Amino acid sequence: MKITLLGAGKLGKQLYRAFVNTPEINLVQWYDRSALSKESPEGIPIITSLSEIQETNLYLLSISDDALVEVANKLPSTSFVVHTAGSVPMDAIPQKRRGVFYPLQSFSENQVIDFSTIPIGIESTDEKDTAMLMQLAHLMGGRPQNLSSNQRETLHLSAVLVNNFTNHLLTHAAKLCASQNLSFELLRPLLIETVRKTEQLKPHEAQTGPALRNDQKTIHRHLERIYDPALKNIYKTLTTSIQTYYENEKL
Amino acid sequence: MKITLLGAGKLGKQLYRAFVNTPEINLVQWYDRSALSKESPEGIPIITSLSEIQETNLYLLSISDDALVEVANKLPSTSFVVHTAGSVPMDAIPQKRRGVFYPLQSFSENQVIDFSTIPIGIESTDEKDTAMLMQLAHLMGGRPQNLSSNQRETLHLSAVLVNNFTNHLLTHAAKLCASQNLSFELLRPLLIETVRKTEQLKPHEAQTGPALRNDQKTIHRHLERIYDPALKNIYKTLTTSIQTYYENEKL
Repeated sequence: MKITLLGAGKLGKQLYRAFVNTPEINLVQWYDRSALSKESPEGIPIITSLSEIQETNLYLLSISDDALVEVANKLPSTSFVVHTAGSVPMDAIPQKRRGVFYPLQSFSENQVIDFSTIPIGIESTDEKDTAMLMQLAHLMGGRPQNLSSNQRETLHLSAVLVNNFTNHLLTHAAKLCASQNLSFELLRPLLIETVRKTEQLKPHEAQTGPALRNDQKTIHRHLERIYDPALKNIYKTLTTSIQTYYENEKL
Repeated sequence: MKITLLGAGKLGKQLYRAFVNTPEINLVQWYDRSALSKESPEGIPIITSLSEIQETNLYLLSISDDALVEVANKLPSTSFVVHTAGSVPMDAIPQKRRGVFYPLQSFSENQVIDFSTIPIGIESTDEKDTAMLMQLAHLMGGRPQNLSSNQRETLHLSAVLVNNFTNHLLTHAAKLCASQNLSFELLRPLLIETVRKTEQLKPHEAQTGPALRNDQKTIHRHLERIYDPALKNIYKTLTTSIQTYYENEKL
């Protein structure tokens, strides 16, 4: 399978590493607008201009949502062009042969991702092209899954809750701990248990705490203890949401 | 060490199990207001009235925050009385010899907790009594830690963020997934990575996502996708808080 990878951001770098480590994948070129060298350490030609691009089976765009359409527009109209974005519809790609290859994970700069645990959302307009993306995911050892644009965008939104928002809650918790000379590590067993519990129970069954019990005394004490207005807002909003959720459930 | 355990809620049951499984701990009586039998399966006398209570080294109250002071008031004024609540000050206990023994974990009804991983916040007015609580925690295999009432209440608030609020975010994510016939399990690798990352990075360093990037297009698309007004509020509140947090950091 001849592939061109476009983009060298966090995900682009992870895909590059996975591709060069998979003998069945022939990475023909790597497009990196701001590259300084013409070849990667593994001997893959790097191009900085789309005018140098060669023909391959698949152009995989790992490029910021905003620049994605612009780059796709510069690729041959008959090519198979695929993006990797969570919240961009497949139809944003102008080519007739278009698709999506969306690995659902939070990627860091300095970390080698093991794709074998990662769900990869696949979408395409054509059965054969879908099969090609499935094969690519399998070759990388990933777990492909057919997802419509609609499903993928909902999954991406869910991922924001699970990853970005949870991480921000942890940020506030760490800040609170630091303010009282407490190690954040004191919270780790609880954090691990919070995640583990959802293996046995649905998250809505695992809910506990002052908001669920409508324990006004504790809620009041907590709010008195919060000086950061942003955290105060978070506390009130989530407490209200928990209460509304379980009141509606009773109806 | 002669102990009286008061209360048979989620935590009370876990403490009971840990005590009867520790030969060095002599659990003299178990107070359970609504018990039907006079003896536990392990042969511990169960009392339903405080008038039957015997003298021991330590009265451990695992009782709801609201009922705690009332029960403590009925115990001998010279006894050592200790509560297990996260957000009740130690001085709520009227006895001169008072203390706190606060295991930081989320307890479920049908699950045997391994105390060896659990931080236990210890507080008391007297050095010898503190030592007794430390010893009790050690005997159970727990990880005791001196915490002032102030520290403990901040830790309890942090635990609400880490456990209750995170779990509610997961509840909304699961609901979104269900609305599009997506398995919640698709999110598990991301959830595990979210937690794992905080072992290497501070939570505030691990932040990613549309709020941090100020990616208005994606934020707008997400808000359009949310029909639940409570979740819409959560999304807006957390997005604003993330943006405020990192703007202030730049200053």
